[in-house]
Amino acid sequence: MPLVEDTFFLDPNFQGTLQSQIQQIVASAILAGRLQAGEKLPSSRKLAEHLGISRITVTLAYHELVADDYIKSANRSGYYVSETAPMVPLPAIKGEMHKDTVDWTKAVQRDFTGGKTVKKNYNWRSYPYPFMYGQPDPDLFNQASWRLCAMQALGKKEFDSLTSDYAEQDDPELINFIARHTLPRRGILARPEQILVTVGAQNALWMAAQILLNERRAAAYENPGYHGIREILRHTGCTQFPVEIDDQGLPPDMLPDGLNALFITPSHQCPTTTTMPMDRRRELLRLANERNFLIVEDDYEFEMSFLKPPSPALKSLDEDGRVIYVGSFSKSLFPGLRLGYLVGSEPFIEQARALRLASLRHPPGYMQRTTAYFLGLGHYDAMIKRMRGVYQKRRQVTAQALANTEMKVAGRASFGGSGFWVEAPERVDTEVLRHRLADNGVLIEAGNPFFAGEDSPRNFFRLAYSSISSERIPEGIRRISQAIKEY
Amino acid sequence: MPLVEDTFFLDPNFQGTLQSQIQQIVASAILAGRLQAGEKLPSSRKLAEHLGISRITVTLAYHELVADDYIKSANRSGYYVSETAPMVPLPAIKGEMHKDTVDWTKAVQRDFTGGKTVKKNYNWRSYPYPFMYGQPDPDLFNQASWRLCAMQALGKKEFDSLTSDYAEQDDPELINFIARHTLPRRGILARPEQILVTVGAQNALWMAAQILLNERRAAAYENPGYHGIREILRHTGCTQFPVEIDDQGLPPDMLPDGLNALFITPSHQCPTTTTMPMDRRRELLRLANERNFLIVEDDYEFEMSFLKPPSPALKSLDEDGRVIYVGSFSKSLFPGLRLGYLVGSEPFIEQARALRLASLRHPPGYMQRTTAYFLGLGHYDAMIKRMRGVYQKRRQVTAQALANTEMKVAGRASFGGSGFWVEAPERVDTEVLRHRLADNGVLIEAGNPFFAGEDSPRNFFRLAYSSISSERIPEGIRRISQAIKEY
Repeated sequence: MPLVEDTFFLDPNFQGTLQSQIQQIVASAILAGRLQAGEKLPSSRKLAEHLGISRITVTLAYHELVADDYIKSANRSGYYVSETAPMVPLPAIKGEMHKDTVDWTKAVQRDFTGGKTVKKNYNWRSYPYPFMYGQPDPDLFNQASWRLCAMQALGKKEFDSLTSDYAEQDDPELINFIARHTLPRRGILARPEQILVTVGAQNALWMAAQILLNERRAAAYENPGYHGIREILRHTGCTQFPVEIDDQGLPPDMLPDGLNALFITPSHQCPTTTTMPMDRRRELLRLANERNFLIVEDDYEFEMSFLKPPSPALKSLDEDGRVIYVGSFSKSLFPGLRLGYLVGSEPFIEQARALRLASLRHPPGYMQRTTAYFLGLGHYDAMIKRMRGVYQKRRQVTAQALANTEMKVAGRASFGGSGFWVEAPERVDTEVLRHRLADNGVLIEAGNPFFAGEDSPRNFFRLAYSSISSERIPEGIRRISQAIKEY
Repeated sequence: MPLVEDTFFLDPNFQGTLQSQIQQIVASAILAGRLQAGEKLPSSRKLAEHLGISRITVTLAYHELVADDYIKSANRSGYYVSETAPMVPLPAIKGEMHKDTVDWTKAVQRDFTGGKTVKKNYNWRSYPYPFMYGQPDPDLFNQASWRLCAMQALGKKEFDSLTSDYAEQDDPELINFIARHTLPRRGILARPEQILVTVGAQNALWMAAQILLNERRAAAYENPGYHGIREILRHTGCTQFPVEIDDQGLPPDMLPDGLNALFITPSHQCPTTTTMPMDRRRELLRLANERNFLIVEDDYEFEMSFLKPPSPALKSLDEDGRVIYVGSFSKSLFPGLRLGYLVGSEPFIEQARALRLASLRHPPGYMQRTTAYFLGLGHYDAMIKRMRGVYQKRRQVTAQALANTEMKVAGRASFGGSGFWVEAPERVDTEVLRHRLADNGVLIEAGNPFFAGEDSPRNFFRLAYSSISSERIPEGIRRISQAIKEY
């Protein structure tokens, strides 16, 4: 059956160009066997008329298809499917799916499911008042410069960094930048062999837990705190100690005895955003040394310090090698980047390197190289500076709008940050509130998943201003306040 | 101290353009505090003269720096470091590193290091006769089309797929292509919720082991076989059964009792490249059902079938849900891509999804989208077709050159493949041979790491023709043969 122009339909939701849409229709028809060798394609004129697009678009698509040998042009008589087109014979597939005979409740030996997580709305951009945390704002991310760096990393002479198997290694340009520029700003001195690139901070935290913990070990963490940590610890089988935080973060004297590791966010506590004062940090390190436990520091959002300079990382005070530092580019650039890093003593990094090799080999070299360029050319710092200015404004507007409501700011970073931790009146379950607000165009993040245990507070929520413009903040907060009144 | 033109040096090893090199020198001088607000930059004319480059290159670099607010142009008098340039105050760093007080032999609770791995030469491209396995050949990879797809995935309207946090989700375009195009060619029918994208096949194999195995479970694998599997299994603490393979792959009647999982490469055994015949596959599935074990199928290099069509995957014969299928784009496209996928029953994929979320969240959306375009536009199949033609020629040349030597082809895929598994005379330790050959410009991969146990054969090696041109193969093999004679 020849491919007549009537079988072409443009998909309004197609993400690419018109030209690539036409390429894709033809190539997949050939690959799927719907179009056979020797069959004729509609002329570029006819197809262009049928689709109401320019003829040159069709011609360019056909040229690309010729280059890949899907089609051939015969002298003056048009385009035909090439006799040597890439075609794979399809094996026979049985038409129905069978019912498993495997008893999965027995086959699955470790249950990784069932953790409390924050429910996110994936189509959040369609909401007018998205107080969404940790999603990039297209108005603030410098996509044009990122694109230039990405194109540079796609160049001919970058073939190796794009395509090669790095195995246990990393892109030397990125490691070099982290060692020479990023870490010194956090007060940290590290050699390249003390740094390992990871698939985001999540991967770094997870590896640290895998190396340090098992059923015979105990770990403490902040409560409320990042819910992902509880899942990571649960998977190791270790004993878990949630420690209640106060308005200065985790109180060292509340730490239990017999601890092997502490997971902590000193610079910007998740989710309350408070910063741990210097004397607590010193006390924490003293205790760690005395009681012989290790500290995994998630150095979280320190870039967003627009009210005062960020305090140096806990790791910068560490003289014993007790602090394992977790950094991330995914948070400040964009979460889809999936690039973070671990900094620690060599015996630890050596283990992390071996675990990374066995579990995923390495984060894509191309993402590492693009990031190295973006950092090296100064775009990163320029972008952070812009974001700081915008966030400062948004923070002010948010604080003002909250002032005359039933809501109480339960946590705010003294140095800046990207949102507030908010307490609603006790009668309010913010998970219920979240659903009601979503129907009214407002997105908030319910706070219960940040608390350990079943009987934990339900009236907190995270109100981030990182993805909503200053102009929309007052009306968004008015709607939240209204919904709380009507609760 | 102003930045005078004399402090600019072009680095001949710099990977980017001249323009970006100049941007980088200025931006990092400002970020590092070597250049302060208000200080003057050399004029574009002077700097261009000093470096012997075109003035427009310098001007363009300066414009980019102005856009990021690193520098400002003052009317007619030149460029100055901006008063509001991104600058981060550096905390004081102690000048020396301390000696750890941590006893790492006690702190490390799980030892991930120490596995046998294949040593690779990272600068392999500088060797004239690289019989390297699994590294991309720049002459065969269609980088121009990849670049176009990557640029498309960087477009304005692709902002979400580039930047968003997918959490436990994947790019729907890639999942769709795998379900509708890739799997049907392997005879497999799967719904999107039965597919999970992974950071390469390594990550897929590792997750399967984490879910199915622990200290109370037993797993079998091929011997010789992929060395990474032994490491993955060792980390789970399970009982390990290596099973000797013959010239038809793994013999089902050699499988021990009490097995919970089998890891296998039926389509193209690693490293011998043999294909398992259909009757063995059926017997394997019958046994799996009778004895209630699961099979993890690494469907390895099936694309390189140029002598006859590939046999359908083992998974295509599976009526019980016993086969967990591992596919990869990293092998056929390029290893640095780090994209693979798992296909299995929903209760299994649900666990894998939760484990992936906790251990790394998701593979970068941008790599997923770029791959989806490359596949969807038909470039992938076109490239595979080209590779098949070239590999067929190289295979023939390799076989001819080996015929008159002391070497014996111990394994070759009946359908094609990218290399041979070669047996040298028993007196030869191929790890020693490898070192001698490297001094003579030839790279081979010693075979011992593929065997389980300490007392395993040392006279095998892998001879891949995927990264060496046909013209160079005969001389390369002559040198190997010579080195064996002189051994």
